[in-house]
Amino acid sequence: MALLSVLTPVLVVILCLVIGFMLVKSREPETTSTSQDKTKAASKSEFRPWVDQDLQDDTEITAREDEDDDWVDNEQDLPHVPYSHQRYTEETMLARSQEFYTLMNQRRSVRFISPEPVPREVIDNVIRTAGTAPSGAHTEPWTFVVVSDPEMKHQIRLIVEEEEEVNYRQRMGDKWVRDLAKLRTNWIKEYLDVAPYLVLIFKQTYGILPNSQKKTHYYNEISVSISCGILLAALQNAGLVTVTSTPLNCGPQLRLLLKRPANEKLLILLPVGYPAADATIPDLKRKPLDDIMVHI
Amino acid sequence: MALLSVLTPVLVVILCLVIGFMLVKSREPETTSTSQDKTKAASKSEFRPWVDQDLQDDTEITAREDEDDDWVDNEQDLPHVPYSHQRYTEETMLARSQEFYTLMNQRRSVRFISPEPVPREVIDNVIRTAGTAPSGAHTEPWTFVVVSDPEMKHQIRLIVEEEEEVNYRQRMGDKWVRDLAKLRTNWIKEYLDVAPYLVLIFKQTYGILPNSQKKTHYYNEISVSISCGILLAALQNAGLVTVTSTPLNCGPQLRLLLKRPANEKLLILLPVGYPAADATIPDLKRKPLDDIMVHI
Repeated sequence: MALLSVLTPVLVVILCLVIGFMLVKSREPETTSTSQDKTKAASKSEFRPWVDQDLQDDTEITAREDEDDDWVDNEQDLPHVPYSHQRYTEETMLARSQEFYTLMNQRRSVRFISPEPVPREVIDNVIRTAGTAPSGAHTEPWTFVVVSDPEMKHQIRLIVEEEEEVNYRQRMGDKWVRDLAKLRTNWIKEYLDVAPYLVLIFKQTYGILPNSQKKTHYYNEISVSISCGILLAALQNAGLVTVTSTPLNCGPQLRLLLKRPANEKLLILLPVGYPAADATIPDLKRKPLDDIMVHI
Repeated sequence: MALLSVLTPVLVVILCLVIGFMLVKSREPETTSTSQDKTKAASKSEFRPWVDQDLQDDTEITAREDEDDDWVDNEQDLPHVPYSHQRYTEETMLARSQEFYTLMNQRRSVRFISPEPVPREVIDNVIRTAGTAPSGAHTEPWTFVVVSDPEMKHQIRLIVEEEEEVNYRQRMGDKWVRDLAKLRTNWIKEYLDVAPYLVLIFKQTYGILPNSQKKTHYYNEISVSISCGILLAALQNAGLVTVTSTPLNCGPQLRLLLKRPANEKLLILLPVGYPAADATIPDLKRKPLDDIMVHI
């Protein structure tokens, strides 16, 4: 008992230490995880806000209630009309498909664009053509912003180059062996000033119903990309060139600059014009048919 | 001192209780959060495995190190060659862009496809044409699986219809007013048996390097969708019809059926052929140019 009595103060001290430790400990995990989450969220949103927003637009919403797998499903209430069709002979089909392949196979991404003016009517026609693309539930979720105003083109260039420079400088940490002069040519986008037209393709991630509720645009990114494919075909058919670019991280700034509404997000930016007289292209090859097609 | 002595056993008991409580407490939050996470992950993956996997493929990986915003950036080490260009007069450009618009504007999604055979060479040419699309860093991340074997087409139909039926039945809970017979026509996809060809377009979410490491395919979904747009243009040009469908949730099953590798994910399924003699289409209109284009 005497021994215990002597130990009592020691026990009290231990008790205090244990309780203190417990209090610290019980707060620690929460605090740590919260701050970690915050750090994660913050670094994510700072690093690539546009991409993270896209995630939600396309996929979270897409797969909920109305999984329209055929893209015309919810038009079933529209009256049906006979489909009139242009049918060719087998020989004609073969010839047409061969000619179209030859034409499209001459398409290349060209970054050296001539400042020569291009008739506005041709641009109107290629945008009209892009608008014939199919879209999920026929929502036609695209806006083509055609910029020919020199000051606006320059503003776009400043925004794109600023983001590009950040991207390239961040890479330099890892790839320090690279030549600075060589990198520099990569974030300078002269064609944004020079090309007679910049076509900025926005996807409408949702629509607004008359009762001002949001209307989900299913598969909007796929639809708009398909439309872009038809636009590229139309440009090539008209003898114009472009380079397909996806200006990462510039989306929100360019949207504000061009005064587009909040439901629109920049997907693709195409400078459009004739090629410069001395335009060059990388000497790349395309995969042969057997590498891209499997027949069963 | 005597009082303290008396209290000693009490203090020992309190100390034991506190230590015990602390041990329990320190494990509790971990367990809870883990089980919550697990539940979340499980319900997610059960509900829409394909979509969730896609999420990761496209977006998480995309935005990391190499943000190639121009799609040809990492070809800078290839030698450049002069670009040879077919230039038309302004009149010709206008005429060509108008004709191409007229041709593409006749394209419609057709679900009533004739069983008549279509020359295989025409299909080869339209797939070749699709393969001319631009792609992020020229990865050409597409595989076109062309199915003409009747038994395989039927297997595909069974998988797609089974998933469709689930989708539609799930919807019925909410939309009980709808006519069952009417709904039924929506999950029956006769064209999957009837069309002479089914073209299943897979996106390659990553590539395999010679050292068997994964190679990120940037923007693979956008690239493959653009390629699909060019394919739709080529089909229309050849006088063939299709309907653009995105078979949600069937991706993994169809991938296994067609023996495609794990890096490939089904994006789009196109039944291809001539239209049936009595084919009908919903009487829909397209937005006028002013609704899809803004000029600045």
